[in-house]
Amino acid sequence: MIPDYVVLSDAPGDVLKESIDKGSYSSVGVLVDENTLKYCYPIIQTHLPRHQIIKIKSGESAKNIQTSQNIWHSLTKGGFDRNSMLINLGGGVVCDMGGFCAASFKRGIDFVNIPTTLLSLVDASIGGKLGIDFDGFKNQIGFFKSPKRVIISPEFLSSLPERQIVSGFAEILKHALIFDAHHFEDLKSPGQYHTNEWKEVIHRSLEIKGDIVTKDPQESGLRKILNFGHTIGHAVESYFLSSSTPLLHGEAIAIGMICESWLSTKLNTLSGPDLEHIKDKLINIFGKKGLGEINQSKMIDLLRQDKKNKGNTILMTLLNEPGIASYDIIVKEEEALESLEYYCSI
Amino acid sequence: MIPDYVVLSDAPGDVLKESIDKGSYSSVGVLVDENTLKYCYPIIQTHLPRHQIIKIKSGESAKNIQTSQNIWHSLTKGGFDRNSMLINLGGGVVCDMGGFCAASFKRGIDFVNIPTTLLSLVDASIGGKLGIDFDGFKNQIGFFKSPKRVIISPEFLSSLPERQIVSGFAEILKHALIFDAHHFEDLKSPGQYHTNEWKEVIHRSLEIKGDIVTKDPQESGLRKILNFGHTIGHAVESYFLSSSTPLLHGEAIAIGMICESWLSTKLNTLSGPDLEHIKDKLINIFGKKGLGEINQSKMIDLLRQDKKNKGNTILMTLLNEPGIASYDIIVKEEEALESLEYYCSI
Repeated sequence: MIPDYVVLSDAPGDVLKESIDKGSYSSVGVLVDENTLKYCYPIIQTHLPRHQIIKIKSGESAKNIQTSQNIWHSLTKGGFDRNSMLINLGGGVVCDMGGFCAASFKRGIDFVNIPTTLLSLVDASIGGKLGIDFDGFKNQIGFFKSPKRVIISPEFLSSLPERQIVSGFAEILKHALIFDAHHFEDLKSPGQYHTNEWKEVIHRSLEIKGDIVTKDPQESGLRKILNFGHTIGHAVESYFLSSSTPLLHGEAIAIGMICESWLSTKLNTLSGPDLEHIKDKLINIFGKKGLGEINQSKMIDLLRQDKKNKGNTILMTLLNEPGIASYDIIVKEEEALESLEYYCSI
Repeated sequence: MIPDYVVLSDAPGDVLKESIDKGSYSSVGVLVDENTLKYCYPIIQTHLPRHQIIKIKSGESAKNIQTSQNIWHSLTKGGFDRNSMLINLGGGVVCDMGGFCAASFKRGIDFVNIPTTLLSLVDASIGGKLGIDFDGFKNQIGFFKSPKRVIISPEFLSSLPERQIVSGFAEILKHALIFDAHHFEDLKSPGQYHTNEWKEVIHRSLEIKGDIVTKDPQESGLRKILNFGHTIGHAVESYFLSSSTPLLHGEAIAIGMICESWLSTKLNTLSGPDLEHIKDKLINIFGKKGLGEINQSKMIDLLRQDKKNKGNTILMTLLNEPGIASYDIIVKEEEALESLEYYCSI
């Protein structure tokens, strides 16, 4: 489930060329959105053989079955056979959905992920989770399959707006919070890193994720700790998905981590001072978002659809202490809502 | 890739109950079409715990992304969590598409196949191929995953129209033709079998398929011999899919086997007398279908989309002699069309 991944210090040209040449593919496609077409595609373009560009709209709202159909249609029309390759050049949406489409086209063609956002560099790039949103629920449809290769280059970070970098940093903080308390202490605000420091931060974060995923590829146990912050976080993200001010994934997960840290103090062994410390660090980086008046029954509906639940019981990953997490902890609906009240009260 | 399958002499009630009880599922769904709801569901109904029926339209034309969305939507609305099970009660369409939907819902819930047509009993039930048709191409979208269990009961055959039985018999003949010449000789016309003789015929056919799939689960080599008759057969099936007189899958595959036997004599080592013998046996069982005036460029388009092709080269499985097949044999487009002319000239 851990793909062949490589963390570079520079642009991914040569490594990409080598990956493609090795497969002697009949056809090569490059999946982009309007942003990666403009800012990232020029960086790899000259290293590619003859290829077809498949362009989708950027943003989470495009991660759906209609866009998937457009991608499948482009592959069909382009005469892609089973011995073809799709290069996913983009963030989580492009990598998750591009992987989903490639791995299901003619029962699966090879795909390479070149993540271009900080979030996808440290999260979507390894782990083999493919999927799309459906019926208003995140990643409701998908399956597990690893890319042929993941090429990770901090080169793309320089093209990102600051808000995107900050959002992506949420997963780096999460990996530290569930697995490595020292790493959590060492992490600075994302704005404080120089370009050449990112490689190391990303590398450590991927090591943590890789360790966890290797031990439990299909998420039957341990891997669930990677969901810390995500039960509340996904619900909050879905809740605001169709609003005029949708949250970025990492922004929602930061809210989720604060709420679930509060629940960790209420229901698990996380100490009050640790909660304060975590909350302060996260608020310092992400700021405090105004959530407005929350429609409780809508929020509960979203929480109930979480993939980690069993029947009607909401199950979460909570912290025992910074760096150590437990999964499958039962949380009552009222408690989940209370944790959001706590966030709003900060 | 070979699922836990069981061939019964009677109705699948007890075995089904045991399979469900073992999993202690939060929710159980039963996917049916209008025919299996009427004729097959009553046979298993009393052996099921509380469950939700999900009904789709019968027939190949329903095996598409829209129906898949309806199924995913029903699972979402029904509150199915990851610890749920879907029972696919039907032929190849229900089993292939139900498997596709289950294995991609929340990144995969368990599913059990109860094939109810002869075709799906011997073909779709094992092998792990899931999928739907797309853009006019058969099984264009899908992936590999095995059901939790396959329950095979000839009990359902008695509810089938004769045409369905004859169609399903095509795959039994194919398994024999590519792997076991004696079995091919032993096979009678489907109308000549008594109910209690089917179990043995089905059992041998599944043994052959199981042997092949075990050696090459992902179809990188040997498994391709299972495609005998299917390159021409799928194209013919797709060609007539939207006509007023669509062919059943097995009927199209029988035509494909005759055409590809002719190609085996022209391009491989199959002898003229063996071709005559195979053709006579197949025409005797399936009759001769009138294909009318074939639009050659449309047919070539369909042949080019075959998943076994490499680039623009059409690759087929051909016979060396009855019981022995070779795969990845290059066939020119003109030759493929000529083989259809041969069929029409019979």
